[in-house]
Amino acid sequence: MSKYAFGVDIGGTTVKMGLFDRDGCVLDKWEIPTVKDNDGAAILPDIAESIRAKMKEKGISEGDIAGIGVGAPGAVDDKGTLVGGAVNLGWGVFNIPKVLNAYLDVPVKATNDANAAAFGEMWQGGGKGYDNMVAVTLGTGVGGGIIVDGQIVAGAAGAGGEIGHIHIEDNETEPCGCKNKGCLEQYASATGIVRLAKRRLAKDDSASLLRDETITAKAVFDAVKAGDGVAIEIAEQFGEYLGKGLAAVAAVVNPEVFVIGGGVSKAGEILLTYIEPSFQKYVFSACRNVKFALATLGNDAGIYGAAGLILREDV
Amino acid sequence: MSKYAFGVDIGGTTVKMGLFDRDGCVLDKWEIPTVKDNDGAAILPDIAESIRAKMKEKGISEGDIAGIGVGAPGAVDDKGTLVGGAVNLGWGVFNIPKVLNAYLDVPVKATNDANAAAFGEMWQGGGKGYDNMVAVTLGTGVGGGIIVDGQIVAGAAGAGGEIGHIHIEDNETEPCGCKNKGCLEQYASATGIVRLAKRRLAKDDSASLLRDETITAKAVFDAVKAGDGVAIEIAEQFGEYLGKGLAAVAAVVNPEVFVIGGGVSKAGEILLTYIEPSFQKYVFSACRNVKFALATLGNDAGIYGAAGLILREDV
Repeated sequence: MSKYAFGVDIGGTTVKMGLFDRDGCVLDKWEIPTVKDNDGAAILPDIAESIRAKMKEKGISEGDIAGIGVGAPGAVDDKGTLVGGAVNLGWGVFNIPKVLNAYLDVPVKATNDANAAAFGEMWQGGGKGYDNMVAVTLGTGVGGGIIVDGQIVAGAAGAGGEIGHIHIEDNETEPCGCKNKGCLEQYASATGIVRLAKRRLAKDDSASLLRDETITAKAVFDAVKAGDGVAIEIAEQFGEYLGKGLAAVAAVVNPEVFVIGGGVSKAGEILLTYIEPSFQKYVFSACRNVKFALATLGNDAGIYGAAGLILREDV
Repeated sequence: MSKYAFGVDIGGTTVKMGLFDRDGCVLDKWEIPTVKDNDGAAILPDIAESIRAKMKEKGISEGDIAGIGVGAPGAVDDKGTLVGGAVNLGWGVFNIPKVLNAYLDVPVKATNDANAAAFGEMWQGGGKGYDNMVAVTLGTGVGGGIIVDGQIVAGAAGAGGEIGHIHIEDNETEPCGCKNKGCLEQYASATGIVRLAKRRLAKDDSASLLRDETITAKAVFDAVKAGDGVAIEIAEQFGEYLGKGLAAVAAVVNPEVFVIGGGVSKAGEILLTYIEPSFQKYVFSACRNVKFALATLGNDAGIYGAAGLILREDV
């Protein structure tokens, strides 16, 4: 029985890689640079070479490897084809497993990087023990990963889980990055929280710790923890929007757990206390019984999920 | 190879049944009354007896039967257990296949009736040829059935696809049947359309065909077809809400097709012309490429879907 799997998370600057044992424990992790010259032609060969070097270092043969999982920054179909290419790598449309198999003759599976991270959190992170999970990533934008019965919902166009673009506010005047107006992402992302904060601060002259510093999502939640009234109002607005959006998601796929990750989630458990009341206000009663948890794998979620594509089904 | 399957759709008044061949063609369909005395204890034995009688009539042995699919009016988990009972049959919590197997020794699968209908539309109806579909039922309420990669999304509590209870209007003052305010169902169901119509008619004295008759969803769309300006405004409002709600659904599961059924859908293709512009206004660009189709199986969708549970995977 093969003993190991590799998880690969391809980003625009670095490729993160991990070597996992069958139990899902990471034995080693490392990074290589993402070389984007010549339309990123060297990226997969570089990955193969790095894996081969790691195998040599650890004395692992191809027969010991259950497979390699890959998360890529683009829509990937269930055969591992990058259906719309990956603009920020310079990649066009091709099948990732087939190309990688030209260099390494082991099973390869590929998926979208956000979905890989969601899968990682289900497999070994904040959603461990659950089969029906929605991962919510609160970063520069708001992303999502939907997992139903242990399987990623990739969506017909690879756009499953794009929950940041649920329309949530009819009265918005500024456009979202997607050009629509009133998307969840405009209020619940790191930049959305900054927007809410600036609007609130401009409304009146109430004293606030936030008036003395650069406004970031972190600054807002730090001020919340310090008991700042204005910051608490901002956090309540954030929670109102996000809870409402997640209630809509719950009415569609009725998950067991929401796992909240991304940079904003570094605020910790306090974040959940602003999301859950709003969620409970808007959610359909039969979908009410859902847990909220924080993501635990951080930037490693992608390599866990990529390896999990191989190991979780192979067990 | 077994040649036939039965599809059973258990309703509060009648049980609909169908005999299907392997190709998914219905060879015979019939109904028996739903006997609710003694907490519905006779319902499954009655179904078994009716199937046995049909087998005798057609000269079919148990060995010719691939299985029996059952749609029941309650939340059903993936083992066929009615997890919360079925109040309007008098049923408590039990495993439907196990009970039915005490009477008929053939494979049995069970699911929720709305999900069965959605599955039927995917298998042989308006969603034929698609694996990623959302069925939308516009009846007294608004129901939904989510199908991802050919599988029903039942949800953790059997409440997947409860899209009628997506919060869609912040300014609603009347409660929905679920006690929340501003649910999609309050505007896009048959009763919701009547509410929109009454509100519009009360707003001013504009002439309208609707002032002379009992207001129903059918009357509204008949007046739309006759070019009635007020009715067209009402249909636009309906479409605005439903399109917005379906855009949220699309951002979660990114389907290939929405199949619109239920009593309201009898208005025909004109219905879609009011839904699609709003959907396109609110949907995330990557989820934009989705088809809208009308359901085609009507009240038979449930027996098709129930039989499909057996035949679609057995082929």
